Amino acid sequence: MKVFVPGHITSIFYPIRKNNLLKTGSRGAGVSISHGYEVTGETIDENRIKIFQNGEEVGKDESKISYEVAKEFLEDIGSGIKVEQEFQIPHGSGYGASGAGALGTALCLGKICGKTMHEAGKIAHRKEVQLEGGLGDVYPQLVGGVEIRRREGGPGYGWVDNIIADEEWKIVSASFGNLDTSDIIGDKDQSEELKKVATERIDRIVSNPNIKSLMNNSREFSNEMGFLDDFILDLLLELDEVMSIPPSMIMLGKSVFGFVQEDEIQDVKSVLERYDPIFGPIESRIDFRGARFLK
Amino acid sequence: MKVFVPGHITSIFYPIRKNNLLKTGSRGAGVSISHGYEVTGETIDENRIKIFQNGEEVGKDESKISYEVAKEFLEDIGSGIKVEQEFQIPHGSGYGASGAGALGTALCLGKICGKTMHEAGKIAHRKEVQLEGGLGDVYPQLVGGVEIRRREGGPGYGWVDNIIADEEWKIVSASFGNLDTSDIIGDKDQSEELKKVATERIDRIVSNPNIKSLMNNSREFSNEMGFLDDFILDLLLELDEVMSIPPSMIMLGKSVFGFVQEDEIQDVKSVLERYDPIFGPIESRIDFRGARFLK
Repeated sequence: MKVFVPGHITSIFYPIRKNNLLKTGSRGAGVSISHGYEVTGETIDENRIKIFQNGEEVGKDESKISYEVAKEFLEDIGSGIKVEQEFQIPHGSGYGASGAGALGTALCLGKICGKTMHEAGKIAHRKEVQLEGGLGDVYPQLVGGVEIRRREGGPGYGWVDNIIADEEWKIVSASFGNLDTSDIIGDKDQSEELKKVATERIDRIVSNPNIKSLMNNSREFSNEMGFLDDFILDLLLELDEVMSIPPSMIMLGKSVFGFVQEDEIQDVKSVLERYDPIFGPIESRIDFRGARFLK
Repeated sequence: MKVFVPGHITSIFYPIRKNNLLKTGSRGAGVSISHGYEVTGETIDENRIKIFQNGEEVGKDESKISYEVAKEFLEDIGSGIKVEQEFQIPHGSGYGASGAGALGTALCLGKICGKTMHEAGKIAHRKEVQLEGGLGDVYPQLVGGVEIRRREGGPGYGWVDNIIADEEWKIVSASFGNLDTSDIIGDKDQSEELKKVATERIDRIVSNPNIKSLMNNSREFSNEMGFLDDFILDLLLELDEVMSIPPSMIMLGKSVFGFVQEDEIQDVKSVLERYDPIFGPIESRIDFRGARFLK
């Protein structure tokens, strides 16, 4: 039994925190991509949780959220648990890696324990929020597509709408380093300004929902909020020269992405490579289906 | 521009009516299938709504719900509208044909008018409820998969969860005549009994979510509610002999369906054919993705 969970890129967001972790989340917009996580889960005799990432066993601290997700199933399963994660996306660069690991783990173990997709998703969302992996990746990763998070929260609480998008779009992205989310958000986290700017941009996307409007508003959002440092700004301006639809910054990584037409791909990749990425450039498709069990 | 909308089979339901049409719907369970509707929509100079079904223009009364959905877009579009629907599923037999036509129409015209998937879905849901096409097809048809409708209503209001299901399942179904929904539901529509029996069965599926539990509980539900006439009951009993998972009645058609393994298909089809169906037997796959734009 193997699960695929798409990576998830957020380009606009604002956090909403409540006492109930399932009602906590973010509003915003983003896209699920064809690069992600493949996760398998099984029961083992040895009475502990073993987590492997790309073939190597990792400690509890290196896989904290997946570990805590697995722990939620321990009593039900009544023996040990082995989770194997293979991933094509980096951690800490804004690709929703933590959500993908958590959701993949929850779905595999949820299948063993007899849970629905959304009951498994709730466990992943709760642990993501509680352990500060992220606020708005898990539900979109279940739904897939180019999405607008119109109401915050996990499955059963949030509302993930989709923008109508052509299957043919390619998404090119690259990362130039990790960001500590708290460094960039800092006291802006709960600020009225972030809420106001994001809400205005989200409303514009809802009333004119297409890829161009998504990206224009995302770019303006990161500009207005002062999220773009000189490096990212230079890169985005250079990419503008070779892209018909503006690229934007991935929230929150030192990373950029954009929707690219076939004849633009090579030029876009060349620019990205010149800026010496630590990951990518990768060329993904939109993942329209969301997390799924593979044969 | 062309949209595919899966057919949708409901096997358990109870209606919940509210003043707000978007909060009105049904709770229950069912599955989206690979047979459905292909719909195209375009603007035309002639200032009226033209609807074609399988190549022939049909009158307003024969396509009432799709017509009324199209009418909602008329002002925005500012000219006439032509909608073409090609379908592989019959009307009035419980395949969610009316929802598929409404949703396909709304998505095509929604793309022209700049609406999100769910804003288009809301229009289809509202018209379905208002004109009594159905209560619980549209949102599941957007979501896809084997589903549990855990909260009634259209997109943004309802909650459609999924059962983890193998891609390999085949769904075999056939119809033996149309049913007037009001004939069979009658004054049971709002009855406490329907609500009680359905809720109990839905709860059992949520706590043990798999295909076998779905079908066992669906069969029990239709039994307990007295929905099975002698013809359908005989047919289901005969099918039991050749199926490892019990088949059930489609709500609400004089129709049956079941999840079938490869080596059972021929026997199941033979039994269905002996009962002289007006439609089918057809062999579908689960549609995991839900409504989508085709190239």
